[in-house]
Amino acid sequence: MEQFETFLGSHLPSAPSFHPHYENSLRQMLIGGGKRFRPALLLGVVRAYNPLLIQSAYHAALAIELLHTYSLIHDDLPAMDNADLRRGIPTLHKTYDEVSAILAGDALNTYAFEVLSNAPFADRVIVKLIRSLAHNGGAEGMVLGQAIDCHFENFRLELDQVKMLHIHKTGKLIAAALQMGAFIVGRDDMAQELYDFGIDLGLLFQIQDDILDVTQNEIQAGKTTNNDQAKNSFVTLLGFERAMEEANILADKINRQMTSFDENLQRELSPTLNHYINRHKD
Amino acid sequence: MEQFETFLGSHLPSAPSFHPHYENSLRQMLIGGGKRFRPALLLGVVRAYNPLLIQSAYHAALAIELLHTYSLIHDDLPAMDNADLRRGIPTLHKTYDEVSAILAGDALNTYAFEVLSNAPFADRVIVKLIRSLAHNGGAEGMVLGQAIDCHFENFRLELDQVKMLHIHKTGKLIAAALQMGAFIVGRDDMAQELYDFGIDLGLLFQIQDDILDVTQNEIQAGKTTNNDQAKNSFVTLLGFERAMEEANILADKINRQMTSFDENLQRELSPTLNHYINRHKD
Repeated sequence: MEQFETFLGSHLPSAPSFHPHYENSLRQMLIGGGKRFRPALLLGVVRAYNPLLIQSAYHAALAIELLHTYSLIHDDLPAMDNADLRRGIPTLHKTYDEVSAILAGDALNTYAFEVLSNAPFADRVIVKLIRSLAHNGGAEGMVLGQAIDCHFENFRLELDQVKMLHIHKTGKLIAAALQMGAFIVGRDDMAQELYDFGIDLGLLFQIQDDILDVTQNEIQAGKTTNNDQAKNSFVTLLGFERAMEEANILADKINRQMTSFDENLQRELSPTLNHYINRHKD
Repeated sequence: MEQFETFLGSHLPSAPSFHPHYENSLRQMLIGGGKRFRPALLLGVVRAYNPLLIQSAYHAALAIELLHTYSLIHDDLPAMDNADLRRGIPTLHKTYDEVSAILAGDALNTYAFEVLSNAPFADRVIVKLIRSLAHNGGAEGMVLGQAIDCHFENFRLELDQVKMLHIHKTGKLIAAALQMGAFIVGRDDMAQELYDFGIDLGLLFQIQDDILDVTQNEIQAGKTTNNDQAKNSFVTLLGFERAMEEANILADKINRQMTSFDENLQRELSPTLNHYINRHKD
């Protein structure tokens, strides 16, 4: 992922003006680290089926990281998680102010689509990529998950509702990353299978995140932790033991799905899954 | 514009879930009225050059209205204008809460690009439309204008800086509307000229808005007024008389540009300009 970091570093949003920190506010959370899980998945699919397209695929990987990063900036706002720390550094509204954080999030959201519209793919591929990112990252996808999460912060939801929450909040963007990889390499026949795999992966990711949230401190996690305890986390809902059980069941399912994939896809996705599963999410 | 309202009403964002007001929060500001200035400009260009494409063009007009509406929702937030009233109804964060307003704005921003990605145009046209909307509505466009506006709320800017502020905050999206109209009808040769015309139009629109802001009350304007007085409004900067003068100079320039356009374009844009110029902006 080193090459992707270099690409990201040279494709940061640019907006020169007499505003003293606007451009920095757009960049801070992007260069502030992050595990690049979604880019890694998208790039894994591309590497498996057509490694020659990897340079072009960086544009799409950047777009999905932009959308993810905007969502983190807004999640951390005082009206939502009110977090002071993210990716090991102060959150944007702590570094600057709330206006800067709201607007940086807005700008990165839109910029994701600008990056895709300028990506070096055929127009029909660009349109598919934008459709997938917008649908899964938007009103019926990630944002719905976040809305449910915030609104029911102090209500106990049913397990199915919590699953729906996280399928939207976390799963859909991960699923889109894999699906977008399939579109880039022209393997539209794989798009649905990879999408479904991504939904499961997102759910596992979230359960693990909930587990880590109660076992890690802020320095280990690089962000404000123990924030989710009052919320509908899987640990709160199921208890620690059963949350671990659910995580293991899902991990088994994901492993079975992995073995059904082409060898080259298994080879390319394995390092990413091994690296991130059972670690923390950014 | 009645047909566009009907189209908008049947293409509202949909996101059924067990959340009690999420879907309503996405729709409230869209159906809450608004002058549809940007859609009217886009549709005017399409009607001038290829009226057969008007049904398809509604998708693009909706996209630009979605982007504009998200920006109003976020502008009204407590951290920014802290407005209670918009389009004659309570602002979203007043009706529900801040989280709902932030997330509805986020969702509408993304949804604008989903709508374009599904619009009934050739892929190469869709890509051009998305590129224009994202570039002008994003980090280097509208959002930069808003960032400057908020950050320098209590500083006196130079006239050139205030112009730059409003060219970005208001002009660029209006310019994009006209440019997108040109792309839809395949008149890419007209795109730059219409874009520049839109920048002037946006500036005039803003000066008039500033003038109305000190002459109208909330009921007439349908939104919280006198909010902009402490800010870098043209009236604050130039005084009422000189702001009126600037508005007249700009109006003359726009009229001259209009007479240089094809007759059919003049005919289609005139009603919109006559209707909105010297009235208030939503």
